[in-house]
Amino acid sequence: MGVVLPLQDRPSDPEASLDALVGLVAGGMERVNAMILSRTGSDVTMIPEVANHLISSGGKRLRPILTLATASLAGYDLAKGREADGDVKLAASVEFMHTATLLHDDVVDESDMRRGKVAARIKWGNEASVLVGDFLLGQAFKMMVEVGSLRALDILSSAASVIAEGEVMQLTAARSTETTEDEYLAVIRAKTAELFAAACEVGPVIAERPKAEIAACRSYGMNLGIAFQLVDDALDYGGTSADLGKNVGDDFREGKITLPVVLSFRRGSDEERAFWRRTLERQEIEEPRDLDAAIAIMRRHRALEDTIERARHYGAMAKDALALFPASPMKQALLEAVDFCIARAR
Amino acid sequence: MGVVLPLQDRPSDPEASLDALVGLVAGGMERVNAMILSRTGSDVTMIPEVANHLISSGGKRLRPILTLATASLAGYDLAKGREADGDVKLAASVEFMHTATLLHDDVVDESDMRRGKVAARIKWGNEASVLVGDFLLGQAFKMMVEVGSLRALDILSSAASVIAEGEVMQLTAARSTETTEDEYLAVIRAKTAELFAAACEVGPVIAERPKAEIAACRSYGMNLGIAFQLVDDALDYGGTSADLGKNVGDDFREGKITLPVVLSFRRGSDEERAFWRRTLERQEIEEPRDLDAAIAIMRRHRALEDTIERARHYGAMAKDALALFPASPMKQALLEAVDFCIARAR
Repeated sequence: MGVVLPLQDRPSDPEASLDALVGLVAGGMERVNAMILSRTGSDVTMIPEVANHLISSGGKRLRPILTLATASLAGYDLAKGREADGDVKLAASVEFMHTATLLHDDVVDESDMRRGKVAARIKWGNEASVLVGDFLLGQAFKMMVEVGSLRALDILSSAASVIAEGEVMQLTAARSTETTEDEYLAVIRAKTAELFAAACEVGPVIAERPKAEIAACRSYGMNLGIAFQLVDDALDYGGTSADLGKNVGDDFREGKITLPVVLSFRRGSDEERAFWRRTLERQEIEEPRDLDAAIAIMRRHRALEDTIERARHYGAMAKDALALFPASPMKQALLEAVDFCIARAR
Repeated sequence: MGVVLPLQDRPSDPEASLDALVGLVAGGMERVNAMILSRTGSDVTMIPEVANHLISSGGKRLRPILTLATASLAGYDLAKGREADGDVKLAASVEFMHTATLLHDDVVDESDMRRGKVAARIKWGNEASVLVGDFLLGQAFKMMVEVGSLRALDILSSAASVIAEGEVMQLTAARSTETTEDEYLAVIRAKTAELFAAACEVGPVIAERPKAEIAACRSYGMNLGIAFQLVDDALDYGGTSADLGKNVGDDFREGKITLPVVLSFRRGSDEERAFWRRTLERQEIEEPRDLDAAIAIMRRHRALEDTIERARHYGAMAKDALALFPASPMKQALLEAVDFCIARAR
């Protein structure tokens, strides 16, 4: 018998990219993209038009990538054979759920831009955004049913409820500048991280892996999702329009309370608190002066840096969650994906 | 051995009511109502508020009643035992799907009234209507998953897609006064009748009945749904506000092309066609004069009477679909329900 040398997980790379992960799932993603294309088809021509406007506008497809990656990490291909397409169908379902959420969010937020393009609701009206979103949700569930795993269905249908709950929370309880960090975390767990968690959990579920591996993948997704959203929140006050594919200051204009605001408000002077109340709660905003002032206050209190710091904390938890898997190129790529999500903030 | 005298199906009753059907499923509907109440619960208080505003506002709950009734007709209780609650959970799911559709429709139609109450979107905003609708859809799928029938899941998730498709069809292709009766039928099959069909189909599915019985119940639901919608279309030009629980002339004001319009347009003079184009396509409406004129044109061409006549045709098909079931109080009650739906138009 030879000596088995365990591969060491390399330390996290500050220049991390998604390339390794994207490369490892490239074959599966081709099948996912074909599935997406075929399932947005409808004789009602507006449906593929609206759906493809958003789907083809070049999101990174991080969520379906995660479903394929965790299924592969859990040995789905080995267990079920190369022809099995449960992972592909669930990945496409996850992307449809995400797209439906984006379409409905645009109506809720009254957004004008999405992924660097004019929002669907501006081009086709609120009606089309609501209804095409509903169509995609229906198609997502149909695909899940085809996979035939009641457990995966339970995970993804629960996620659908939790996401909507999180969005309502953001509309109501989380509209106040008094929102605490914990309350804010509850919102982003529900509205963003839950879908990451579900996308990662269904992989080992359809590979019929033990409970501990399923919980590990769910935890990886949940913590990655939180880190991802926190970085997004910071970018909304620090990036440039071209990088973001949306307008900088969108959250500010929409009166969204995100972690940079929560931290700035708690750490600020009475005068600064009055500023946040006027701009975010009463929506009395003078541009560009007020956005510049908001960013200046955040810099003064290191609110953006500390938001990224928090993201690093959740990123570390995401990586630790995968510890029970043996070293492999896929594991390594999933660890790098965490670094990539955080490095976006630089 | 005694002589078995078969019960005769009684001829259809012009004074038909839903009472017999409601009475036969009363026990099950109590469980459905309790299920609905418990599944609209959320720590996010706006969710039960919005959901219950609509759910408690006294719709007839025809769709969940149909699920319980067809399950019972197919012997679900006998096959699965009194404690089985698959029928109850699917009935509650069907009502949630319907409620979600109503919430999203209000946003699409920009309605002010719904079931005789201020529409949720007026009271809580479009955002809440979209998101609480999404929450209810998620909860509906969760309940279906609990029932564990992949076939029922397939039927109801397909219905969700078809309904959204029908609504988009109504927004686009069916916006023109040139819409044909066939095109209009395709819209209402999808947006209304499909859910009736699915509600009736899942009953025998969970009772594991043969294909012919499942198809019969689906056909009953589909044809009843078409009849129901046609009568609604006629009522929108002929009823009174108090009877309808919505404003008379809503369809007219929203520029909806319904069968009374399709028939009037085809049968009308050039001048009348110009009237329909101005009011419905260009939305140049002077009230109350134009609504009165619309109703006068419809009466001249017997468009409302003939819409009801068409409804009777589909009602007859619904009744015939149940022919393969032996006579029973439940079958009789389902036949009377068809007469009731049509008799609303008087």
